[in-house]
Amino acid sequence: MSLIVTGTVGIDTVYTPHEGHREGVLGGSCTYFAAAASFYGPVRIVGAVGDDFPDELRATLDSFPEIDTAGLEVRVGSKTFRWGGKYAENMDTRETLFTELGVLEEMPPKIPDAYRDSRFVFLANTHPAVQLEMLASFPERSLVVADTMDLWIDTAREELHELLTRVDGLVLNFDEAEQFTGRRNTVSAARRILELGPRFVVVKKGEHGCIFVHRDGIAALPAYPAERVVDPTGAGDSFAGGMMGFIAAEAARGAQDEPASFETIRRALAHGTVIASFNIESFSLDRLTTLTREDVVERYGEFIKMVRVD
Amino acid sequence: MSLIVTGTVGIDTVYTPHEGHREGVLGGSCTYFAAAASFYGPVRIVGAVGDDFPDELRATLDSFPEIDTAGLEVRVGSKTFRWGGKYAENMDTRETLFTELGVLEEMPPKIPDAYRDSRFVFLANTHPAVQLEMLASFPERSLVVADTMDLWIDTAREELHELLTRVDGLVLNFDEAEQFTGRRNTVSAARRILELGPRFVVVKKGEHGCIFVHRDGIAALPAYPAERVVDPTGAGDSFAGGMMGFIAAEAARGAQDEPASFETIRRALAHGTVIASFNIESFSLDRLTTLTREDVVERYGEFIKMVRVD
Repeated sequence: MSLIVTGTVGIDTVYTPHEGHREGVLGGSCTYFAAAASFYGPVRIVGAVGDDFPDELRATLDSFPEIDTAGLEVRVGSKTFRWGGKYAENMDTRETLFTELGVLEEMPPKIPDAYRDSRFVFLANTHPAVQLEMLASFPERSLVVADTMDLWIDTAREELHELLTRVDGLVLNFDEAEQFTGRRNTVSAARRILELGPRFVVVKKGEHGCIFVHRDGIAALPAYPAERVVDPTGAGDSFAGGMMGFIAAEAARGAQDEPASFETIRRALAHGTVIASFNIESFSLDRLTTLTREDVVERYGEFIKMVRVD
Repeated sequence: MSLIVTGTVGIDTVYTPHEGHREGVLGGSCTYFAAAASFYGPVRIVGAVGDDFPDELRATLDSFPEIDTAGLEVRVGSKTFRWGGKYAENMDTRETLFTELGVLEEMPPKIPDAYRDSRFVFLANTHPAVQLEMLASFPERSLVVADTMDLWIDTAREELHELLTRVDGLVLNFDEAEQFTGRRNTVSAARRILELGPRFVVVKKGEHGCIFVHRDGIAALPAYPAERVVDPTGAGDSFAGGMMGFIAAEAARGAQDEPASFETIRRALAHGTVIASFNIESFSLDRLTTLTREDVVERYGEFIKMVRVD
């Protein structure tokens, strides 16, 4: 029932309006996704770093026992992907200060043969042509979900359309859904994306939660009403990690529902929401490194009470 | 178990980016609130119009059998409150084109003696000094909820503070909660307001739903994921009307919970959400005039399925 994520492992510098800043901390879509998913079971990562990747960041990644890092290439003579960002006063928008692509400008990472049996595949945000290539490496896939971003909507629309015919689900931000479809209404934009291929779309709205549009139904979920947000970096990836981790764990325990069903994913979204709510309580993966499964279960219980409607 | 609302009955002109515009249609906080609440039981209104108030708008108001308009003063020689607004492309923000205060510049409406036994009181948005005066006219009140807006936060902060010591609940928009408290985080802003007196605060976030902070707990609720929004005018007032209508109806049927309890209001918010979702499907009260209780029950059932978490 193996879960795999392809994406970036990077080094971040993050400035926040109220909580100071951190330089050279562990980041990347793979990293946040995998750390979040690891609370539900094993997760494989496929990514690449340079030989400048610091030992202590590697140690943090290795400190999650459920993360299998055999697919993390360390390239001699290459540079690790670095990103610097600054959050605006409202914490909702951020400005990219710098991007040093490093290994991302090179060939995509090789996928170990041992990973070819992966069944649950999350293609974190990268060029859709790379996502398509990755996808083809998992012949036994039973659920594929991709993330994307404004850059590819602008510059690689054709490949993105092709990708959408090959995935079960797409995860994207609400403004990207509008940009991609030209439809301001979230539900309407998501329906348009469904026409292009996927069985479901999860539209992320940050602190306002998400809208889930599936061929078999619609759901809406608020975010966990967090009182203190330190650093929103990785919220979307940890959300996706919690979601996919739950889906893979359900399949592993022999749940009857098929993984892409409306019901399974609807339930998975609440798990993603809860894991993301921990992630934003600290810079980088600081909170996730100390998080326990008991913490997750406890907050999940709280969250259910908070969003209950009867 | 009488429910009453004090506020405005007015004539609106509304411009929208995609659905055209309407001139001289029925509007006002009292109107939207009462129409929404009337799906749950009787509701009294206190307001004033001028002798220019058109017969056909009066007829629309009178077409809701559960609205008691004995408290609607028609003032000879006075002008009805008129408001004109234009929604931005995103439908989230609007610009006020004109405001003709008319009767709102005169004495507040008199409250009929027969209304003094009102128990559930909603003080729709107006100057907090007027809200305080209204409040004193209901000696048998068992639940008082007030709405407010940025104007009073700027210009009548002292009276607003006084008002907050006298009400059970406050309903306001998320940006107003921030403006009032200086706290960007919604939960944190709401907690600050609770320190000023009320037992609960409902922070409205438009298409993103609401956050409910009560001395006994917190809840979050998404909006109904509407696919077509024609005119958001009155969404907040119809939300409040559905909420208060449900609370009054629960009390009328002898529910055990007290009206200001966390549980009662949490359940009431879902009803407000559903009624508001109908209201925004048309200009003015067009949709509410054709709405049936069966429609409300049906969508309520759908909504519960959409927001269910387990």
